[in-house]
Amino acid sequence: MTRITVINPNTSGALTNTITAAAQAVSSADVTVTGVNPTVGVPSVESHAEETIAAVGVLDLVRARQADTDAYVIACFGDTGVHAAREVATCPVVGMTEAALQTACLVAHRFVVITMPPRTIAHSARVIRELGLEHRCTVVAVDVPVADLMGGSSHLLDAFTEAARAAMATDGAEAVVLGCAGLADLVAPMSRVLDVPVVDGVAAGVGIAAGLVAMGLNTSRANTFAAVELP
Amino acid sequence: MTRITVINPNTSGALTNTITAAAQAVSSADVTVTGVNPTVGVPSVESHAEETIAAVGVLDLVRARQADTDAYVIACFGDTGVHAAREVATCPVVGMTEAALQTACLVAHRFVVITMPPRTIAHSARVIRELGLEHRCTVVAVDVPVADLMGGSSHLLDAFTEAARAAMATDGAEAVVLGCAGLADLVAPMSRVLDVPVVDGVAAGVGIAAGLVAMGLNTSRANTFAAVELP
Amino acid sequence: MTRITVINPNTSGALTNTITAAAQAVSSADVTVTGVNPTVGVPSVESHAEETIAAVGVLDLVRARQADTDAYVIACFGDTGVHAAREVATCPVVGMTEAALQTACLVAHRFVVITMPPRTIAHSARVIRELGLEHRCTVVAVDVPVADLMGGSSHLLDAFTEAARAAMATDGAEAVVLGCAGLADLVAPMSRVLDVPVVDGVAAGVGIAAGLVAMGLNTSRANTFAAVELP
Amino acid sequence: MTRITVINPNTSGALTNTITAAAQAVSSADVTVTGVNPTVGVPSVESHAEETIAAVGVLDLVRARQADTDAYVIACFGDTGVHAAREVATCPVVGMTEAALQTACLVAHRFVVITMPPRTIAHSARVIRELGLEHRCTVVAVDVPVADLMGGSSHLLDAFTEAARAAMATDGAEAVVLGCAGLADLVAPMSRVLDVPVVDGVAAGVGIAAGLVAMGLNTSRANTFAAVELP
Amino acid sequence: MTRITVINPNTSGALTNTITAAAQAVSSADVTVTGVNPTVGVPSVESHAEETIAAVGVLDLVRARQADTDAYVIACFGDTGVHAAREVATCPVVGMTEAALQTACLVAHRFVVITMPPRTIAHSARVIRELGLEHRCTVVAVDVPVADLMGGSSHLLDAFTEAARAAMATDGAEAVVLGCAGLADLVAPMSRVLDVPVVDGVAAGVGIAAGLVAMGLNTSRANTFAAVELP
Amino acid sequence: MTRITVINPNTSGALTNTITAAAQAVSSADVTVTGVNPTVGVPSVESHAEETIAAVGVLDLVRARQADTDAYVIACFGDTGVHAAREVATCPVVGMTEAALQTACLVAHRFVVITMPPRTIAHSARVIRELGLEHRCTVVAVDVPVADLMGGSSHLLDAFTEAARAAMATDGAEAVVLGCAGLADLVAPMSRVLDVPVVDGVAAGVGIAAGLVAMGLNTSRANTFAAVELP
Repeated sequence: MTRITVINPNTSGALTNTITAAAQAVSSADVTVTGVNPTVGVPSVESHAEETIAAVGVLDLVRARQADTDAYVIACFGDTGVHAAREVATCPVVGMTEAALQTACLVAHRFVVITMPPRTIAHSARVIRELGLEHRCTVVAVDVPVADLMGGSSHLLDAFTEAARAAMATDGAEAVVLGCAGLADLVAPMSRVLDVPVVDGVAAGVGIAAGLVAMGLNTSRANTFAAVELP
Repeated sequence: MTRITVINPNTSGALTNTITAAAQAVSSADVTVTGVNPTVGVPSVESHAEETIAAVGVLDLVRARQADTDAYVIACFGDTGVHAAREVATCPVVGMTEAALQTACLVAHRFVVITMPPRTIAHSARVIRELGLEHRCTVVAVDVPVADLMGGSSHLLDAFTEAARAAMATDGAEAVVLGCAGLADLVAPMSRVLDVPVVDGVAAGVGIAAGLVAMGLNTSRANTFAAVELP
Repeated sequence: MTRITVINPNTSGALTNTITAAAQAVSSADVTVTGVNPTVGVPSVESHAEETIAAVGVLDLVRARQADTDAYVIACFGDTGVHAAREVATCPVVGMTEAALQTACLVAHRFVVITMPPRTIAHSARVIRELGLEHRCTVVAVDVPVADLMGGSSHLLDAFTEAARAAMATDGAEAVVLGCAGLADLVAPMSRVLDVPVVDGVAAGVGIAAGLVAMGLNTSRANTFAAVELP
Repeated sequence: MTRITVINPNTSGALTNTITAAAQAVSSADVTVTGVNPTVGVPSVESHAEETIAAVGVLDLVRARQADTDAYVIACFGDTGVHAAREVATCPVVGMTEAALQTACLVAHRFVVITMPPRTIAHSARVIRELGLEHRCTVVAVDVPVADLMGGSSHLLDAFTEAARAAMATDGAEAVVLGCAGLADLVAPMSRVLDVPVVDGVAAGVGIAAGLVAMGLNTSRANTFAAVELP
Repeated sequence: MTRITVINPNTSGALTNTITAAAQAVSSADVTVTGVNPTVGVPSVESHAEETIAAVGVLDLVRARQADTDAYVIACFGDTGVHAAREVATCPVVGMTEAALQTACLVAHRFVVITMPPRTIAHSARVIRELGLEHRCTVVAVDVPVADLMGGSSHLLDAFTEAARAAMATDGAEAVVLGCAGLADLVAPMSRVLDVPVVDGVAAGVGIAAGLVAMGLNTSRANTFAAVELP
Repeated sequence: MTRITVINPNTSGALTNTITAAAQAVSSADVTVTGVNPTVGVPSVESHAEETIAAVGVLDLVRARQADTDAYVIACFGDTGVHAAREVATCPVVGMTEAALQTACLVAHRFVVITMPPRTIAHSARVIRELGLEHRCTVVAVDVPVADLMGGSSHLLDAFTEAARAAMATDGAEAVVLGCAGLADLVAPMSRVLDVPVVDGVAAGVGIAAGLVAMGLNTSRANTFAAVELP
């Protein structure tokens, strides 16, 4: 079995459970998904300041889970702490944002990232630029706080569907990336209504991480991500 | 079981067998890999003209294998016919080049693509630019024809290792993408000697394709890749 | 006399005649334009799959016309088979898309490419990106199939003019590139109505190709486009 | 008087004093510079993991200094925590990296960033890409740890001068950005020896920050950097 | 005292006085600002042709003011003659456009440049591209001639505010750059109404230029901007 | 007959004659080439300051030649005054730099621009970036002043050939652009020795300009290049 630890960087255990269950449901049979989150930190990551605090929790969880993990997936759009986690983890680390963006490239010429709330558009844009994908997608936002996701996301179906429709009509979007963890409830109904691929980055990340493990690939220690000893 | 058809666009059955076996060896247990190649076409793809002819063979094989396939991987660096295959296939299609490049991004800040022969550097560069990854990698070439791979690639170990070392020293490469199908023999020894990740795009493509299947994702039919009826 | 062979990659002889006559009409007096098309292939090129098949026809025609040709122009927006043709031809090859884009850059700061049908926007975008011109233009599409051009294009005047007006109003377009062969009928009336330059890529390509011949320039054989012997 | 707080994100008080004194020495007479650093954290920032921890210290210091500060300068190459600090601070925040890069653009067509140690090249590259300056500079590294700076930087003069000379000879560099805080000792001797501008980002940041204060400009609260209440 | 000469490239002395007074008002106490303009040339710079003529006047004024100047600011959006002035001046030269763009980057994730009249959008775009900032801003124009600014700019408040509001709503702009000299009247009221930073490039340029002087930085003479002897 | 006026922006009549004769020699039979230069101005254009002065001469010559000209070619690498000339001329204007770069793209995947002297590398880079061609070429320089060209350029053959060979070996160059007017003497011998295309931008510009005339295309007056009345 390939053991994937999904790290939700905020402190909501309910959200962690939702995320984990959704990712497990669409993963390969030989993959087990364990979700964790920090007990101290921020209830949601909707700003750079919250991201700063949440990243410390990500590092702590990486270190706590080393013996039980074959690969990590960071389940926060914006890929909180992914670079640092690569230095600390002894196995591969995949961000849900990079996983979602790469996946969308394989099923569509252009796509839209729908994130929430609007102030996090810059966080998505940073990962998009790091991967060089500005020419393949646009980013829009639905104006609800992440806290709205704690009991599931199906009440957001109309808002996300409308945002996707607008991007399909005006920006040539041919697929949708859900720009937040905890939105997996939307994959099936949005796919059905819009008839285009809808990507949940956590599920995508788990699949990709399992593939890295199968190939025996780990983060390069050559320079940028050489191992770091923290105090 | 997830049934992946790996299409080798050239006519060498021996190369197809090598490619397929190597990809199966590092894939998940619930994935079966079947390799095919055209019986008519070109013995190797080392130019745009050969690519043009080989792409027709790819389309024919996609159509011939529809009933037995859950996802296709195109096993030629340069991703011969991938866009056209997406229009014709009823399931997802992944190119070994895009798979390799995406994988390398997840394990290294910068990497080198080592292709062969030199005239195909432009083919790699086209896929790199399509994915927006010029800022993450360089492309170099080893000056041997693809025909040299028919009996395996281990005799090329020194040439590829030397090219990788040069890129690590001068371009900041921290991982290696093998820029040709049929080079999987090099993964283990190069990883050992260089101590950095070495990516075989066929293996990477099989894992990613299986992930798409697990998530139920298929190519968007919204516009660019809408289904095409060929004569 | 400079002998230009214009290759229409689809099988419509009527379209070939229209294209050829229009290009001849605006070319220098010492240039003769001969139009050809494959007898077997696809009736129009509106997808990557059709492009794949049409490209084989382009290569066949290049080889058939070598003795009678000083330069080739490929008359299909998306530049079907241009790279491969450069390897096979013994003289220069110019794509109508690259010719049109380069020409528009010389007469306007920004311009719009109006292609047809919408699914080929990605084909135009690929050439634009290969030439690095994303910052100089946008691409829009008129939703008619290429088959509509067989009897001429003047019935499309309103649709193209409206698309151009929209791009002039919202994207700063100052010139128009007609994004399909067979639209030369639109050059004069659109220029008159819009009062901006309207570029037909086939005419532009013939002029540029003749210039290459006059200067004695041929495709570089140094590496990427070294001559290829096909089976 | 304009009160600038310079935040050194690592825990070295000696380095803080060096940095502060150097910046004060070349600043306008109506500017006072106060240097601070976290008492808990990391002794130097040479990795993403250390950056993660140091960023929390930056936020704490921003909050502690609000009443006594008109603008902040973050004195760590890579601009540790700058985005988060903008959300928390009630006044402008300038990173030494962005300040140095912008300054170099005003005095040279191309320049070189010389950072240390090599694994932080990726940190510089991230800021360069965020500002869009890949076409104006290259990044190289001197292989010494930041700890070597604690007693001053003059012993590094030869290594930095040699790196600058190489970039001037091969990459067209016409100016030098010192890619680490604590290198101000090198400005005068390198300028003299190389006869090109040498930029210390802390000094540049203090001047730019004072200018923002004089113009009454503060971080936009419109969206991305709207104020955040931390727990 | 740091002596800054602000060069207005057009022949309007009234505009020079307005520009100079506004810049002095928000500059550091140890900076004196002297405004000058050519007596022969063009009354406004709204085209490349006028820019060509105005640039000669800029060079003449640089030479005339050498003994009395510590740094120059060129007060015309588009940075008329800045590169040439760097070769001729014996001290630093800052363009108001580059100063404004760099300043906006420090207070907002994205911003809008509002220039006038529309035909000068290309002039702004050229400087934006030279600085690599296409991903951080958009350019729009208000359709009034520069001559309208001679008696002050407050009558343009509504037009500029409306343009800014549109960019904030549709392009994610979080700050405003005033894309013309002589618009400083708009800074206070637009800031108040829109509640985002509004940047006057002349004021920004004076502050930045004073910072260069304080640091002892001058234009690199290494290659591109080596001193030139004009006839 | 199509009447092309070639404008040499410097004051050397000998250079004008050389340039004109070379361009006429490789142009179509129905094209006449007339060379002109300013009588007052700078003897060579090797800096931005000289470019500023030379551009005024270009505008004067455009106006003087309106009645006798069907299209202009500006014969100075860096395309001195081309944008302004487009506003003033009543017919098309082509810069030798843009013509050379576009031509090289049609005959090679990558190429090298060899300019002179080194300080003008930035001038070439500006045009390359304006056309978006950074990914297709590199720029190098031979260290001789433009004055060395007055008696012909054949004594520079070795220096240019060596620079081309280096770029072919290390940067993948497959063609050469001669980065200065007056180098046409080098086209034949360099082509012969290097066996790759060698492009003279003046010849290329004349051919392209004649093509614009044949198609009836003129500069768009829609916005950026609307006609300007100079004093």
